Amino acid sequence: MNLPIKNISIIGTGNVAFQIATAFFKNKVSIKEIVGRNEQRVAEYSKIFGARPVFNCNEASSETDLLIIAVSDHAIEVVAKQLKFNNTLVVHTSGSVSMDVLKISSSNTGVFYPLQTFTKDIIAEFSEISICIEGSDKNIESNLTDLAKLLTNKIYYLKSEERKYVHLAAVISNNFINYMMGSTFEFLQEKNIDPTILMPLLNETIDRVKTGNASKLQTGPARRNDTETIAQHLQILKSSKDLYKIYEMMSQEIQNKYNGEKL
Amino acid sequence: MNLPIKNISIIGTGNVAFQIATAFFKNKVSIKEIVGRNEQRVAEYSKIFGARPVFNCNEASSETDLLIIAVSDHAIEVVAKQLKFNNTLVVHTSGSVSMDVLKISSSNTGVFYPLQTFTKDIIAEFSEISICIEGSDKNIESNLTDLAKLLTNKIYYLKSEERKYVHLAAVISNNFINYMMGSTFEFLQEKNIDPTILMPLLNETIDRVKTGNASKLQTGPARRNDTETIAQHLQILKSSKDLYKIYEMMSQEIQNKYNGEKL
Repeated sequence: MNLPIKNISIIGTGNVAFQIATAFFKNKVSIKEIVGRNEQRVAEYSKIFGARPVFNCNEASSETDLLIIAVSDHAIEVVAKQLKFNNTLVVHTSGSVSMDVLKISSSNTGVFYPLQTFTKDIIAEFSEISICIEGSDKNIESNLTDLAKLLTNKIYYLKSEERKYVHLAAVISNNFINYMMGSTFEFLQEKNIDPTILMPLLNETIDRVKTGNASKLQTGPARRNDTETIAQHLQILKSSKDLYKIYEMMSQEIQNKYNGEKL
Repeated sequence: MNLPIKNISIIGTGNVAFQIATAFFKNKVSIKEIVGRNEQRVAEYSKIFGARPVFNCNEASSETDLLIIAVSDHAIEVVAKQLKFNNTLVVHTSGSVSMDVLKISSSNTGVFYPLQTFTKDIIAEFSEISICIEGSDKNIESNLTDLAKLLTNKIYYLKSEERKYVHLAAVISNNFINYMMGSTFEFLQEKNIDPTILMPLLNETIDRVKTGNASKLQTGPARRNDTETIAQHLQILKSSKDLYKIYEMMSQEIQNKYNGEKL
């Protein structure tokens, strides 16, 4: 396992599989096989990446430096059980699934988890993505690191348990903010107000979060226990059920956390 | 009221007052008076801006093109009642207070609300701040616009009711995200994981929000009704009370919103 990874095969034809294949292909890593049940996509992607199309997991060749299982979380174990690879390095790309589920497929396993949310239409810029690596031994971690370095210098080593914490934090950092802001934009649009008015403030918000001092920099009606403004806002939100609940709960949480503290 | 605003006086010595005074001072607008009860700050700021120090609101001179009341929301009306200005233009800087509370102070009133959260230590970059303007007549709005243009081209015209909606949206965009991310950073730190791992994802989150399509781009366990992952995450958060509540509520809201829809 000391040889560098020069070619890879990929199981899966979803967003993660396509984005990872694209990123490695652009970086001259040979894609040997694209494996999946979606025949149209397997055929299409194999053509794009000059790979052999394979339509059944159990027909995936072990003649590859690395097999990447990039399928949905619940399918990883199902796929792993269909592989009998002896020593071929097998990794998955999930934040919440343990590396151990891969044991059944090979004696050499790992995780290659890009901490990003991918869409189909936009080619991801991997230099701006954190990649979390785990390996069943140090050599594997070293090889996966060399591979990851082709794409980004934001490389983190996390054990399966730690990776779950990061995945949870990512759900908050992406899904929850996205939901809250989507609802807020809709609220303003209903009031015929252009939501772009919020953009500079959003930038400032994230700049402050990045300082790592968000908790110390907390401001706003709930922070200063301004119950009058909170009541006014809740009154306004009575017709926007989802934002009402968010506003009420967040304000209570902030009041609880800072209760009694002086601004 | 057709004359351009060439000099201003400011009531207040908090963050908003200081940042606005600094911004105008840098743009060659003369600061005539700094008015406030905090004698030390009034003296200090008057020196910085070459203004006359005034320690009582009712001693503020009406000989100014514009008086800016930049005090906390509940104090605006109290201050306004102490002014008897006839025609001098008086504005406040609040998102949630109606322009009408200024009527008692002058026949010419307005609002100059910078949509930003200010700190003491960092001089704000006003070119990156949205400013919301309201005036008791069109000439006032025009004059306030000319003044705001010295600082930014992000100028919005909002009536008092609309400004409240924007203030509410700002609380969500800043205070709630700040709180949620502060708690998330603390969660990772407790697990000895460097929170900077989240930075690229946060950037992507905000980039997507900025497209205005956040609701359409929603992803994550709650979006795909992945109850197993949600249960795992809640289990992890049992010891982090505030994040537990946030995670539970947000996931429920997202599940409710997208329930039954196909990804």
